[in-house]
Parts: sequence; structure tokens; C-alpha cells
Amino acid sequence: MPTVHELATPALVVERDALEHNLVTLARALPRERLRPHVKAHKCIALARRQQLLGHRGFTCATPRELVGLAEAGLGDDLLLANEVVDPDRLRQLARLDARVTVAIDSEATAAAAAAAGLVEVLIDVNVGLPRCGCAPEAAGALADRARALGLEVRGVMGYEGHCVGIPDRAKREELCNRAMDMLLAAHRDVGGSVISAGGTGTYDCNRAATEIQAGSYVLMDTAYQKLELPLRQALHVIATVISVSDGFSICDAGLKSLGMDHGNPEIENGEVLFCSDEHITFKPQRPLRVGERVRVVPAHCDPTVAYHERLHLIDGERVLESWEVDLRGW
Amino acid sequence: MPTVHELATPALVVERDALEHNLVTLARALPRERLRPHVKAHKCIALARRQQLLGHRGFTCATPRELVGLAEAGLGDDLLLANEVVDPDRLRQLARLDARVTVAIDSEATAAAAAAAGLVEVLIDVNVGLPRCGCAPEAAGALADRARALGLEVRGVMGYEGHCVGIPDRAKREELCNRAMDMLLAAHRDVGGSVISAGGTGTYDCNRAATEIQAGSYVLMDTAYQKLELPLRQALHVIATVISVSDGFSICDAGLKSLGMDHGNPEIENGEVLFCSDEHITFKPQRPLRVGERVRVVPAHCDPTVAYHERLHLIDGERVLESWEVDLRGW
Repeated sequence: MPTVHELATPALVVERDALEHNLVTLARALPRERLRPHVKAHKCIALARRQQLLGHRGFTCATPRELVGLAEAGLGDDLLLANEVVDPDRLRQLARLDARVTVAIDSEATAAAAAAAGLVEVLIDVNVGLPRCGCAPEAAGALADRARALGLEVRGVMGYEGHCVGIPDRAKREELCNRAMDMLLAAHRDVGGSVISAGGTGTYDCNRAATEIQAGSYVLMDTAYQKLELPLRQALHVIATVISVSDGFSICDAGLKSLGMDHGNPEIENGEVLFCSDEHITFKPQRPLRVGERVRVVPAHCDPTVAYHERLHLIDGERVLESWEVDLRGW
Repeated sequence: MPTVHELATPALVVERDALEHNLVTLARALPRERLRPHVKAHKCIALARRQQLLGHRGFTCATPRELVGLAEAGLGDDLLLANEVVDPDRLRQLARLDARVTVAIDSEATAAAAAAAGLVEVLIDVNVGLPRCGCAPEAAGALADRARALGLEVRGVMGYEGHCVGIPDRAKREELCNRAMDMLLAAHRDVGGSVISAGGTGTYDCNRAATEIQAGSYVLMDTAYQKLELPLRQALHVIATVISVSDGFSICDAGLKSLGMDHGNPEIENGEVLFCSDEHITFKPQRPLRVGERVRVVPAHCDPTVAYHERLHLIDGERVLESWEVDLRGW
């Protein structure tokens, strides 16, 4: 295997020690079925296997492609599509998988689409304060009744408190999370079932209402989640090569096509990012750099960063231990 | 072929009429070698072929992968890597291609790397005001001498006025462009050669100094370039499916993993975008929508949007005419 200095750049890498620390931290805090890892963060079957080896046999998916990939890799014990899909072809494909598949529904239309495709198990997706998918909490019971009338088995409820997970102040985050979970528990009283699925990396240690937490970013981390001061380490970096050096600034070959930019600029080790172009970062280094040197970039948002890359390299210091395909990209 | 209503979403589409209009508009304004289309905008061999059929036989590339892909597709008449690369493996791969390859250099190190890999033709990359790659204009002549001493053939200069191309006010844009091109022409007097390569979609019609213009986005367009009121049409859209409808807002299944976000939120036809999540846009529609309806999203930045997608569908109204692979992704 090559060293990190030989990887073609920009190269997406994950540090083994930080990765293992993050995996073990959440496996201890949320053993076995208490964590349903969200694969949208890493989109990588090899990483999902590590999560399964630590006891998490259920996974959360955002896209049909993620779910199909996990099922075909033999990781289909209990797969949740935590998203609404009405495409009949894709839903039929999910129903045909050799896997336990549960899909989120939040309306008559999504319930009918799931039933028509031959899917059986669903969760009622509840809006707990993030204006995205999910029915109103007070409508959840009626939707569950309607789903059951269509022949669906309602396993419980799901409600993502995405409006809380990024709040740096822990007390405020916990308070908003509690309020969101009160709404989900109210919906659950009307819906029934054994599953209350919610949570993310930002609330994994303060959400006490959910029976399972859908954290994903905890494995890799990014500068946005670093602000929360969770007991997790930055495992994901983009390694770039310095390609040009000028008075006062340098340029490396990672840019906005190798980094998710919705949370703003990435950070760069031993330097200050000035701006990003398609294939470049212009930055102010702390010490003079030479053309050809490698620098490490810390993504602002891990999920859309990973989605740009074909491969994720597991490294230990300078050594590249394994190279994994990012095999669950696309839809 | 399917209709647009049958495409799995999110689906990247390009409207034939708008595409043809944009292709023809620039082919008329900058015939043949006056335009060296930048393929980083579309990363699609099928689209590069259309540009070649209109007479543009040279292409601009931002990555080795783009250049290798074009060469292997038989589009290698005159390929410019308008970027600095020092990776010896990749440079040797470029030197071995059955294609005319020219690379940008802006330092001793990049000149030496090109020469060592067996590359022959180079352009001196000059910083004309955008703090990115490029040597100082007054250093260009000495670098050209050094390159020639290493056995390289210096075809001329290149300098991208990226700090001007997005300025909505045309007079201001033209003034800054002229100032940038004065710097490039000064460098060219010291360097020599027949090529003065510069420009982008925002300056294609006001940059009169360059012998060739490196425009790319003109083919597809985005909301950022729309602000310039160029005689070009929005050809690129992401088609999404409405998956959830609530009082006051709706949600569709395109999100920040199918859209370049560095220029901010996309726009949505007949609605107002409220925020984007990984796989969702929450938006306020102008009229009530039903789950399952299709909506069109206009990307804020075409280049990083295309880079997320495997396919680009050519459409004419409702009809899907062709589906092209986005085959030049990655590095």
C-alpha cells in the first residue's frame, strides 16, 4: 500500500485511531439496537460493516441506493429508509430485496405508494419542529390507522430533531431536543409500536426518549460538529497538494468539488482558508510551504464531502491501510 | 426513452433548445479556435463532442481526469490543462496520451515537473488579479526562459480574470477585465508565443485581449451567471419529486448532495426555497402541490452541481432525447 504522500490528490482519508474512537464511543453510549447508524454520512459499505461488527445490526438510509447497497452486501437485518419515496419502481425494488425493509411515511400518498409496491413495514414520520418531512404530531394516529387499513405494519414513529442537533450550547440543545421528543412521544401514544426512532450526532447523548438514535456523522466528524465539543475526534480529512506558492498565500488542489460547501469554507491545518474555487483552496499558511507539500483540509460538512469522492482511504499516520469504495453514492 | 416524469429523481437535465442556443451563441461570437471550451463545467464527453462539431477543436481542462477522458474519446487535437499539477504519475500519463497536451506552469517546480514527465508544451500561468495560481506578471518572462532551458516549448501565456467574471455591472466587469488583460499582455510581451488564453462566461464578450476564451458555464448556465444578463439561456435543471406537503411549505427530493452550494441556495420554479438538507429542499410553492408532482430546481452554480451526478439527460419539453454519462468526474 502507498503512503499518504503517494495518494493522488485530492484524497479523502479517515484516520484509524479517530475512527475507532468514534465507533467505540457510540457503541458504548448506545449499544446494539440503541444506535441505528445513518449511512448517509459515509456512504461506504466497508464502514457499515465496522458498525455492524460493533453490534449495530440496523441501519438508517436517506436514499433507495443506500438501502439497496446495504442489502446486497448482506447488511439487511433491519434497514430503515428514513425518507419519503413515492417512485413505484424504486419502492418495488426495495420490496423485492432479501432484507428487512422499513420505510418512513408521512401522508396518505406515501402510505399508499408503500402498500402498492408490496412493502410491509413502516414508521410514521412526525414533524417535531424541523420544517421538512413528517406529519403533524396530532395527525400521526390517524395516519397509522390508515396505513394499517392498507395492510401495512406500523412499527412505531420517527421524528428527526434536525433543528437542535447543531446548536453549540448544550443546555439549549437539550431543552429543544426534549421539547421535540415530547411531540414525538405524544404522536407515539396515538400510533403505538415498539420503535421511537430519532436523534443525530448532536443529540445522541441527550435524547433519552428515542428507543434508537439515527446518528451518522459521529463516525467521521466535521468542523460544524466540532463546535459541539462532543467526545468525538475529527477522523475525516481531505489531503491536498500545494501546487502554487505566492507572497502571503498558497494554493492547494482541493476545492469546492471535493468539499461540501453548504456549511461554508473548510479549515486547513496550519493555515487560514481565504477562499475556495472549483479545484483550489487559496489559504494563508502559518509557515512558508513548498510546491509539492501535502496539507490536510478539514471539511465543514462531512456528508456532502464524502459524496464527491470515489474512494475513502483508511490511514494510520503516514500509512494507507485500506482503500474503500464510497459505494452508496447517488440515488 | 422515458419522459421527464419517469426519470428517477433527483435528475440532472439539460434542455435542448437552450443548450443549442448557448452553443451557437458562443460559436458565433468566438468561432473555432477563439473559444477553448472549459469542460470542467459539464464534465461530459457527449457535450464536448457537440462543442467540437461547432468548430472548437481545443478544450480547457481543470483536472488530469478531464484531459485523459477527452483524449481517450478522440477529442485530443489541442488540450490545455489550465491548472498546475506536480504529481509525476499523472503528468507522465498525460505525456503518454495520443493527444496534443499543453499544461500551465507558474513556478520553477511546476516547470521542472512537466519537463521531467516528458511533457513538451506549456503556457506560463500569470496572476492577473485573482489570488490563485499564476506567477507575478513581471516574473513571467524569466519563467519562460527557465522553461525553455528545460527543453519545454512555451506556447504563450494564460491568466484567468476570475475576480471579474461574476460582477453583474457590465461596465465595472469590463473595466476590471481590461485591467487584468493589461497585466497579461505585459507578461506576454516578455514571454512570447502565439497563445493568450483567458476569459470565462462572464467576460467572453468583453475580453478583447485574449486570443482564446476559456468559457465553460455558458453551455449550462446557473443563477449566478443569470445575474449578468448575458444573451444565454438557463439550460441546466435538477428535476425533483415532491415527497411531502405541509401547510405553508413543501419538500422535494433534491438536496445539497445534488446541488453545488458554494453560491448559496438554488432557485425553484414557481416557489421560494427556504432551506436545503442533504436530500431535501424545503420550499414555499406559489400554488398548492401534490405529493408525486415534479418540480424544477435551478442550480446556483452549475459546475459543482454536475459533479454530483452520474448522468445528464438531454430533454425537449417532456421528452428525454438522450442520457449522457457525466464521464469526466473525479481527478
